[in-house]
Amino acid sequence: MNHTPEARPLGVAAIGYAFMGKAHSNAWRNVASFFDVPAFEQKVLVGRDAIQVAYAAGKYGWAESATDWREVIERDDIHIIDICAPGWMHAEIAIAALEAGKHVLVEKPLANTLAEAELMTAAAAKARKRGVQSMIGFNYRRVPALALAKELIAEGRLGSIRHVRAAYLQDWLADPETPMSWRLRKETAGSGALGDIASHAVDQIQFLTGQAVMEVTGTLRTFVAERPGPGGPEEVTVDDAVWATLGLTGNLSASVEASRVATGQKNSLKLEIYGSAGSLTFDLENLNELMFLDATVPVREQGFRRILVNEPQHPYLEAWWPQGHIIGWEHTFTHQVRDFLVAVRDGSQPSPSFEDGLNVQRVLDAVQESANNKSAIAVVGGTGNSQSHAA
Amino acid sequence: MNHTPEARPLGVAAIGYAFMGKAHSNAWRNVASFFDVPAFEQKVLVGRDAIQVAYAAGKYGWAESATDWREVIERDDIHIIDICAPGWMHAEIAIAALEAGKHVLVEKPLANTLAEAELMTAAAAKARKRGVQSMIGFNYRRVPALALAKELIAEGRLGSIRHVRAAYLQDWLADPETPMSWRLRKETAGSGALGDIASHAVDQIQFLTGQAVMEVTGTLRTFVAERPGPGGPEEVTVDDAVWATLGLTGNLSASVEASRVATGQKNSLKLEIYGSAGSLTFDLENLNELMFLDATVPVREQGFRRILVNEPQHPYLEAWWPQGHIIGWEHTFTHQVRDFLVAVRDGSQPSPSFEDGLNVQRVLDAVQESANNKSAIAVVGGTGNSQSHAA
Amino acid sequence: MNHTPEARPLGVAAIGYAFMGKAHSNAWRNVASFFDVPAFEQKVLVGRDAIQVAYAAGKYGWAESATDWREVIERDDIHIIDICAPGWMHAEIAIAALEAGKHVLVEKPLANTLAEAELMTAAAAKARKRGVQSMIGFNYRRVPALALAKELIAEGRLGSIRHVRAAYLQDWLADPETPMSWRLRKETAGSGALGDIASHAVDQIQFLTGQAVMEVTGTLRTFVAERPGPGGPEEVTVDDAVWATLGLTGNLSASVEASRVATGQKNSLKLEIYGSAGSLTFDLENLNELMFLDATVPVREQGFRRILVNEPQHPYLEAWWPQGHIIGWEHTFTHQVRDFLVAVRDGSQPSPSFEDGLNVQRVLDAVQESANNKSAIAVVGGTGNSQSHAA
Amino acid sequence: MNHTPEARPLGVAAIGYAFMGKAHSNAWRNVASFFDVPAFEQKVLVGRDAIQVAYAAGKYGWAESATDWREVIERDDIHIIDICAPGWMHAEIAIAALEAGKHVLVEKPLANTLAEAELMTAAAAKARKRGVQSMIGFNYRRVPALALAKELIAEGRLGSIRHVRAAYLQDWLADPETPMSWRLRKETAGSGALGDIASHAVDQIQFLTGQAVMEVTGTLRTFVAERPGPGGPEEVTVDDAVWATLGLTGNLSASVEASRVATGQKNSLKLEIYGSAGSLTFDLENLNELMFLDATVPVREQGFRRILVNEPQHPYLEAWWPQGHIIGWEHTFTHQVRDFLVAVRDGSQPSPSFEDGLNVQRVLDAVQESANNKSAIAVVGGTGNSQSHAA
Repeated sequence: MNHTPEARPLGVAAIGYAFMGKAHSNAWRNVASFFDVPAFEQKVLVGRDAIQVAYAAGKYGWAESATDWREVIERDDIHIIDICAPGWMHAEIAIAALEAGKHVLVEKPLANTLAEAELMTAAAAKARKRGVQSMIGFNYRRVPALALAKELIAEGRLGSIRHVRAAYLQDWLADPETPMSWRLRKETAGSGALGDIASHAVDQIQFLTGQAVMEVTGTLRTFVAERPGPGGPEEVTVDDAVWATLGLTGNLSASVEASRVATGQKNSLKLEIYGSAGSLTFDLENLNELMFLDATVPVREQGFRRILVNEPQHPYLEAWWPQGHIIGWEHTFTHQVRDFLVAVRDGSQPSPSFEDGLNVQRVLDAVQESANNKSAIAVVGGTGNSQSHAA
Repeated sequence: MNHTPEARPLGVAAIGYAFMGKAHSNAWRNVASFFDVPAFEQKVLVGRDAIQVAYAAGKYGWAESATDWREVIERDDIHIIDICAPGWMHAEIAIAALEAGKHVLVEKPLANTLAEAELMTAAAAKARKRGVQSMIGFNYRRVPALALAKELIAEGRLGSIRHVRAAYLQDWLADPETPMSWRLRKETAGSGALGDIASHAVDQIQFLTGQAVMEVTGTLRTFVAERPGPGGPEEVTVDDAVWATLGLTGNLSASVEASRVATGQKNSLKLEIYGSAGSLTFDLENLNELMFLDATVPVREQGFRRILVNEPQHPYLEAWWPQGHIIGWEHTFTHQVRDFLVAVRDGSQPSPSFEDGLNVQRVLDAVQESANNKSAIAVVGGTGNSQSHAA
Repeated sequence: MNHTPEARPLGVAAIGYAFMGKAHSNAWRNVASFFDVPAFEQKVLVGRDAIQVAYAAGKYGWAESATDWREVIERDDIHIIDICAPGWMHAEIAIAALEAGKHVLVEKPLANTLAEAELMTAAAAKARKRGVQSMIGFNYRRVPALALAKELIAEGRLGSIRHVRAAYLQDWLADPETPMSWRLRKETAGSGALGDIASHAVDQIQFLTGQAVMEVTGTLRTFVAERPGPGGPEEVTVDDAVWATLGLTGNLSASVEASRVATGQKNSLKLEIYGSAGSLTFDLENLNELMFLDATVPVREQGFRRILVNEPQHPYLEAWWPQGHIIGWEHTFTHQVRDFLVAVRDGSQPSPSFEDGLNVQRVLDAVQESANNKSAIAVVGGTGNSQSHAA
Repeated sequence: MNHTPEARPLGVAAIGYAFMGKAHSNAWRNVASFFDVPAFEQKVLVGRDAIQVAYAAGKYGWAESATDWREVIERDDIHIIDICAPGWMHAEIAIAALEAGKHVLVEKPLANTLAEAELMTAAAAKARKRGVQSMIGFNYRRVPALALAKELIAEGRLGSIRHVRAAYLQDWLADPETPMSWRLRKETAGSGALGDIASHAVDQIQFLTGQAVMEVTGTLRTFVAERPGPGGPEEVTVDDAVWATLGLTGNLSASVEASRVATGQKNSLKLEIYGSAGSLTFDLENLNELMFLDATVPVREQGFRRILVNEPQHPYLEAWWPQGHIIGWEHTFTHQVRDFLVAVRDGSQPSPSFEDGLNVQRVLDAVQESANNKSAIAVVGGTGNSQSHAA
């Protein structure tokens, strides 16, 4: 089903209009103003509440709204399904859409359970053979500074990478009076900081280094055990924070720390990559900057340089503003949609794939298992099985 | 001409589709997705080249394009004229539009000459009596961090302000091989760093402190006297850099430095405001941050705090993303259009006014005159006359 | 043996004149110029090479030099023994000195083995009953910024601390051509980054929070397995890097990361302490600064403040220079000697004690054991026994 | 009078034991522990109060104390006079010492008046012919980061320098209740921020660039006009802050700003040097760091690098500690004494000379005159005359 853009514009439908729906809609509304992409139309925004979704559709630039995603998937004028619904709905929608021949972009996490993620990945593999594309939304791969980091590493500028230090720190749960919500229950959210934000860190580690996690040691903690619910205190059943040490292929190690109670840290995905010939550091709160140390220059003048990743020479930047006119967080979604549309046009596999999403989930599952067992756990990439060393 | 939004949407036309046209169009295209604004339509984009402007109109979200701004101004379905054309065209277009009863938003500088700026201001005053609004686009007033700075100062958090240190540093002319252009000729650009970027610094000093410049001492320099033109080297007739010391009302002093040859500084508007009870610093390259020192807390724990101005409590931020998800440079234009639309709806004077723009231009003129005379120059706010102390 | 300073000055002997000997000598030479301390004399510097130690004694301000530390310990005019010799010599010297009734200051680590450390601690406990004092040199407790951090935490300014993020990153082993040395052999150095630098991080975590480590999970890695020796490549038998997750009393967690191959990090002990009411961060490369976020101020103006810990109000600073005139790394040893001398004068226990040193070593041993077993290990503070959860 | 170190150690006397006396004494006490210098002895500390100076001598490492500097100057066993007395005493002591054949190190400013500075410079020139050396204490030339900056500039790494941005910001007078003192009276202090701290900025600009100031435009301000004295409010007769724009040889411009009311800035000498091929920035509050941007590397990877100037390859650092173990503010005086002693030994002119000090004073005088006249003032280096452009 390679799309022929001359024929007619791609019809796009998005499912979900909350935080992620707003961010994705923004990307669809703006991508063609900055990038050369195949023609498309923002056709339908789908949501459960007819009135609210109609309002959101008008506000976010969609021609129509709808409440039944199944009907939308069946429409002939819809070619792309962008899934921004909660994680527990991903599998059902994505599989149905792929089977209906629609290209699918799905927000991370791929699914709330490994089993669902595996079904989705199988459906994606099958659809791919028919020219139907799929992609998971690890949008931070499209932060220009991280895309530049990827380039520098691929060019060998860091030499042999020894270890990565990754943390994703937030503080919106630091106050014990912050009320109970679906995000704090295992049955609805799957996990806490682990799946929500550590997932980004794990994806970046593998994306940037090109290496795969082989073994993990993990610890989870819930600092605030109860939170106020409508009918009194309720038990929090997911983690507030997580720590993991990863062993990767290529003789590489990594540490991951994620917390939603790190007071004062607002949205700080911190990455530090140490190699034999150089190092890189990054913080999402200053996402236009990449710190790079080139250890091949004379020691006398070595130092981490703050590269303001805002030059036409940098990934995605030629489309935006002159140098030093910084971009924001939501631009990463615009880049994501740009790359997705180009892949659909070219009939090529967009990256990251559902396989990449499944792989991250296997790592997260192993972290959980390691925390339960208090022992290191091997991640068996090919099969999705994880296995305790202690056993 | 108070607009009744119930009646029909405001029709907007923009003139110019280069750098500023792209930034303004982006604001019009997105403002209603984030803010509650009166209904409006992106009607017409106007430019000299019919083919290019048609392409730009399609790309940037305008319903139509046109090449004759005079015709557009006369249209009944157009209520707002957004002038992004070069500075030498501002006066003619703005005056015509105001006389035709259109609300006008004009990019800074107000005009290339003081005489033109005075005519425009007079036209704006006249139009205002008929309910026709006008605004000059010092967009950095809508950087949330600077809007917060303004609030803190207005609340007295800095106590009595003693002095401001302002610089606007760029480097796109650092290379002497960068070719000649209209921006480097006095007859087309008026001035160099002075009008282009020092203007922003001067506006911020007056905006943030609420005080008016009374006296200036200025120095201008052109470091690269000749640059390559198509037919050989041409003389650069504007300044590469400017320095000024300002005396303001309220017993306040300020320094201004602007350069387009400050190698490594990309778009760095730096502001430092020192008061008896606290201080603030800011850098446009990290525009989501405001550094605040509260000198009323015990010395033992005093220090500049980095406020990540990304909370719902901060100006304009409730409309955007959750905390720590930073915004970019172009969002300042979205905020500007939002405030302009609300003022038009309410029949109130948008800020900054043409008077504010004229005032900045008087200061810049005095800097130029001081540099010529090598002596301090008084700025006579009320009349626009400037007068040498040495005389 | 409470010293009566009126009687006669304390006689000090230092053993070792390499890196640590130089740093300690500097402290003895200068402490009385800045602090009020009991009278003392820099009597003897002890080392194995008679000529070199004589030269060092002259250079570093010691009245004499000697080569036999046993003789020096027996001298009546020596009251204080400062042990800067390598770790494997600590136990023998310290125990002999304590038995001879000399006050002892010993560089960290307390010893190379847990068994030695326990013997030393027993000797110190016995000596203490006779008024003979002992101290271990975790000098970073005397960084003014960290002493201030301790004060703020003790005052409850962070509320309930949830987790600490600690790292000690260096890069002097990043180059695989850096040659083999005693520091890279298990038999001489005990361990690598673990004992050398992670020890400081572990001490700080317990010192700052006042909580004790109860359980650890650890991983060790050697990235450069062989290094050039005089007769060809030799095997490196200690770790290049270490990761640990700590469970502490008080419902507190901590992560520790230490590396000597973190290219571009020179001597970066990074600490981040997250509490319910505030947070602190610190980096030893900017040791005059403490970053403090007070979460009890309104969100609108919250942010990490850079406290330049150089005011008379700050710990140790009144003795030095006016505000903003920063101090260096070696000043921490001067503070250490000051506090040691005052404790000796007052007959009180200097802090940190040998018990504190022993406790850190138990934690490090547990990290090593956890890494070997790939499972979490309990630290039994009272007995020094460690025990596997997996068992 | 070339000193022959074999003969006998150089005898040193210091005059003054307040802030600067303490800092200089520290340098004399420690220099030989770190650097190879000719043998010398800390003989006499001189002060007006016999008891206090005796106490200070004991504390700071001097063998004796004295109250009559004239007698000390005449002693045969004294070869070096280090003048840390207030500025108004410099001329008399320095001239007498030079005439008595003593090498002289004098704190900045050279003198309180231009006339005195000229007499001192003449005396130094005369003494130099007899092998008697003299030096002025612009100690910041010995900050390793600034010494490295000087090297990089001398090697051409910045290309053609266009402009320098310098500021020296402090806040110890920000509080209007800070009481009156001799430093705030013109008759005792000469000037305020101008002579006290702007002098350092002016010296650095000329030192780093190797260019001479030819023309200045200056403005002075006193924000707090009266301060509490013992008998009620007293008038402040010196400046709180100063601004100057400098035109230098070599087609170079510079701005200088100095303030003692810049709330939150403790001791912040900020330097930014912009050249065609690179740039440097520096802040004294982080004196171990130099930021360097090399504009000759590809734009894609350009950025200011933070060089931690703590490697053996850096000026003065081999003498101190391993990499990343930072040094403090007072080390600059140790470096100064080291270089002074070496010059005395070698019979060469130490740098900066009295001529350099005089030159800075001419620039400061011109700034004062420009502020008085509200017009630019030429600095005529060769004659010390200054001349108004307006005249």
